[in-house]
Amino acid sequence: MEAGDAGNGSAAAAQIKGNGDDASCKPLPPCCIKAKAGVPESEAKCHDTVVSGWFTEPRSRFGKTSKVQYYNNPMWPGEAHSLKVEKILYQGKSPYQEILVFESSTYGNVLVLDGIVQLTDKDECAYQEMVTHLPLCSIPSPKNVLVVGGGDGGVLREIARHDSVETIDICEIDQLVIDVCKEFFPNLSMGFKDPRVRLHVGDAVDFLRNSPEGKYDAIIVDSSDPIGPAQALVEKPFIQTIARALKPGGVLCNLAESMWLHTHLIQDMLSICHQTFKGSVHYAWTSVPTYPSGVIGFLLCAKEGRPVNFLTPVNPIEKIQGATKAGKELRFYNSEIHRAAFVLPTFVRRELESYYTTSASTEKEKPKESVSKSQKIKILPNNAILTAS
Amino acid sequence: MEAGDAGNGSAAAAQIKGNGDDASCKPLPPCCIKAKAGVPESEAKCHDTVVSGWFTEPRSRFGKTSKVQYYNNPMWPGEAHSLKVEKILYQGKSPYQEILVFESSTYGNVLVLDGIVQLTDKDECAYQEMVTHLPLCSIPSPKNVLVVGGGDGGVLREIARHDSVETIDICEIDQLVIDVCKEFFPNLSMGFKDPRVRLHVGDAVDFLRNSPEGKYDAIIVDSSDPIGPAQALVEKPFIQTIARALKPGGVLCNLAESMWLHTHLIQDMLSICHQTFKGSVHYAWTSVPTYPSGVIGFLLCAKEGRPVNFLTPVNPIEKIQGATKAGKELRFYNSEIHRAAFVLPTFVRRELESYYTTSASTEKEKPKESVSKSQKIKILPNNAILTAS
Repeated sequence: MEAGDAGNGSAAAAQIKGNGDDASCKPLPPCCIKAKAGVPESEAKCHDTVVSGWFTEPRSRFGKTSKVQYYNNPMWPGEAHSLKVEKILYQGKSPYQEILVFESSTYGNVLVLDGIVQLTDKDECAYQEMVTHLPLCSIPSPKNVLVVGGGDGGVLREIARHDSVETIDICEIDQLVIDVCKEFFPNLSMGFKDPRVRLHVGDAVDFLRNSPEGKYDAIIVDSSDPIGPAQALVEKPFIQTIARALKPGGVLCNLAESMWLHTHLIQDMLSICHQTFKGSVHYAWTSVPTYPSGVIGFLLCAKEGRPVNFLTPVNPIEKIQGATKAGKELRFYNSEIHRAAFVLPTFVRRELESYYTTSASTEKEKPKESVSKSQKIKILPNNAILTAS
Repeated sequence: MEAGDAGNGSAAAAQIKGNGDDASCKPLPPCCIKAKAGVPESEAKCHDTVVSGWFTEPRSRFGKTSKVQYYNNPMWPGEAHSLKVEKILYQGKSPYQEILVFESSTYGNVLVLDGIVQLTDKDECAYQEMVTHLPLCSIPSPKNVLVVGGGDGGVLREIARHDSVETIDICEIDQLVIDVCKEFFPNLSMGFKDPRVRLHVGDAVDFLRNSPEGKYDAIIVDSSDPIGPAQALVEKPFIQTIARALKPGGVLCNLAESMWLHTHLIQDMLSICHQTFKGSVHYAWTSVPTYPSGVIGFLLCAKEGRPVNFLTPVNPIEKIQGATKAGKELRFYNSEIHRAAFVLPTFVRRELESYYTTSASTEKEKPKESVSKSQKIKILPNNAILTAS
């Protein structure tokens, strides 16, 4: 289903109103039954992740089984981050996921999908700016860009800073996410207002299969964690479909979880990207306080063609005329942060290095590409960068 | 009070035994009364920060007032990090603070002082290695080093990697912290075993006042947050006492909180260090998952004398013979991470830049030092490093 243009979410947005009214929550449902000695009952908020006025990710302690309950994402067992809730603004359920928006005490509005924090007003800059400008500043003059997911609009807002860009396709599966974000995250959903944006509501796998080969200069996968609806987005067939849709020398930026928590997942994704892309493949990371372990990683991949050196932006943001046109200054990204994002702690380097050593032994199983360079990973002692190019 | 040598904590260590036995906790005290629908009562752990088997920082929801209670450190209101508790190993109270050690499900053993996580087995490397090697790799051949705080021994362990070092003084106010860490954090407290270590148990302000002027090549302040016993350690008189104890060209590394949460505090500390040190002053940061917002910052300051360029290690860890002698490989720090630690996100740069602009106007109030360069902050567009040198 294609929604036609970026501005047509208003009818759906109207339907979502009224759900966030605190008054509608009384009398309190069982999910808000409070701990005996918590704060007064009247301060309780109405959601089963919110207890005594605090939202906690990713567990609900008040489910039917009276046990700690995980949502569909037990990716960080043994730890949880909590945010104090001022007011629940919205809760609803789409065909794909549960959506919660609340106003927090110190991080502004918070978007939660299936119990997992996706973004907050305070720290969204770190994620949105990095996931966008790491790929787009690494190629000389991006023209056609695709966003997979990204229904909040933040990545669109960041792409719009690049005046070389001619078309911005976005394929988001969940119309409700778009509508809810237009209502509660205007500083992100402003990204939909750019006239270059074409919104496609539907499954990204189908969308990419139907895209012309070699269409895009850059594809940015801005999805939720790879369990649930986003699982297919880290698997090999999808990555191959992405590679097919990229121009020669085109780039992919895909989410790649936390270096502190998910090395095995990063290794799997590196393996797939390493096999699929014939250009360079790199892991980068940044600080995002409300994500588990306080960091999020990215896999930057280039298709064979004009070589891409992700480590040194050839299209530095400081020189892009459109960079501050979007009405808001950059808050996190700059060219130095770009370079620093690829520098890895020793334990990460070691874990990914040993992975690559193992992977290299299975290299013979793959058909040789005459154009591609050796895919063996290199650790350069002096610049300490992990690279597959 | 001086404890004589690094090995004499055994008597005190013996006294602490037995307190961590889970069996001694039954029947459950009121602090462990559970939420109605939490996990079974038998899984409860005995500490007022531990509810339904989870430790939560920095609030207790089960205090006498039935309200959210902060310890003495309300430095990150509105958010909390929780760790699942396998077993409480120790709880006690020294004249200075409350001490809790527990075994977590996924971060190993955890040290908590006054309700605040100080370190975990899993991520201590990021903090201990950075706070130590950022200063020691920035000067050619450190000989005399002082640690303020650091009773867990981790910084000592890291200093010991530097074979140029001849003496390592440590001034920790709380003997109980030392004893507890010897019991439950052997991989950190092994730092006390190095024959170069001299332990002084007492107040660091007194200790430094009695130190010869110009004694140390480097001083590392490894304290708790600057509220409570550690408050004096970020104030001007103490920083001046530190500067006095440093050799010309000597360096200080002081904790400087989170760039996401405590910009005002960082500004205050920058101001004090900027006024006190006549060499370079820099802010650096690193990722530590169990610290609030997932990051911790450092202030690196050099006394006038031989110029110190913190940004490029002149004493790179990769070339230090003793770097792997301590029996354990580095897990986090390397020379590239050193350089990247000084790269700041745009919002941090902006907030500290505007601070420096204001601060520069009060520059005239200070007596001029003929040796010192201009103290005005510079933002270099190309390398984006904030510097006061």
